[in-house]
Amino acid sequence: MDFLHTMIRVKDLDANLHFFCDLLGLQEVSRIESKQGRFSLVYLAAPGDMKSAQEKKSPLIELTYNWPNESGESESYNFSRGFGHLAFRVENIYKLCADLQNSGVIINRPPRDGWMAFVKSPEGCSVELLQKGEALPPQEPWASMDNMGSW
Amino acid sequence: MDFLHTMIRVKDLDANLHFFCDLLGLQEVSRIESKQGRFSLVYLAAPGDMKSAQEKKSPLIELTYNWPNESGESESYNFSRGFGHLAFRVENIYKLCADLQNSGVIINRPPRDGWMAFVKSPEGCSVELLQKGEALPPQEPWASMDNMGSW
Repeated sequence: MDFLHTMIRVKDLDANLHFFCDLLGLQEVSRIESKQGRFSLVYLAAPGDMKSAQEKKSPLIELTYNWPNESGESESYNFSRGFGHLAFRVENIYKLCADLQNSGVIINRPPRDGWMAFVKSPEGCSVELLQKGEALPPQEPWASMDNMGSW
Repeated sequence: MDFLHTMIRVKDLDANLHFFCDLLGLQEVSRIESKQGRFSLVYLAAPGDMKSAQEKKSPLIELTYNWPNESGESESYNFSRGFGHLAFRVENIYKLCADLQNSGVIINRPPRDGWMAFVKSPEGCSVELLQKGEALPPQEPWASMDNMGSW
């Protein structure tokens, strides 16, 4: 028995792919498009998981994008408290948070301790970032940065 | 960068451990209990991921259990549509679904095709089960079993 993926639904696929891939650094592994079912499934993996993802197809993030109906309407999604977050180990939490912030992403929980940060996807999926190995030495502007919003 | 875990919150830790470990077959990898923060974090892995889980600590399911307050009250959690499900590859989807059903778990989406089923945790976390390898030949009672509820 293996853990295969966590699925989240997205309303704006492009905005979510921009966040998860261009900004966060995940990579697209595969994609299924169903004209009949009017949905797209996009499978993402962290770079460190690509070999495993290609061999056994996990662990992955599955983005489910339900296409708008014929009137152009699509469902909006939100995350209630049962779901907590997706967590990723990152090479350099300061560099990633700086890059995210420069791209307009709010750092909800700044990495004051050089170890842990939280951000959110464009549609509110909470993402935890954890520094690889030991925590980095405290560093400004992060060390004295307040929390912003919830995550 | 590696995917580490998906975190979900649980109100009844025992009931969820019974479901995820005793019934579904995940294994407890580690546990953190914080008296100060009044929470427990329980990390689970699928048997096929245990080696990877022990080496690099992923991929895991993190159950967050916030202890009741001094009045004995605790928050209830639910899952809105942003979160879809956790997916696991299983050795024999018919045997697992039969065992789950015999233990009182509703098979919301029976494995009519010998390949895919959906069940829910005691607090409504949707879980997808996918047959390892090829789909099994259609088999009763599953082949003609209707869906029940949502997932």
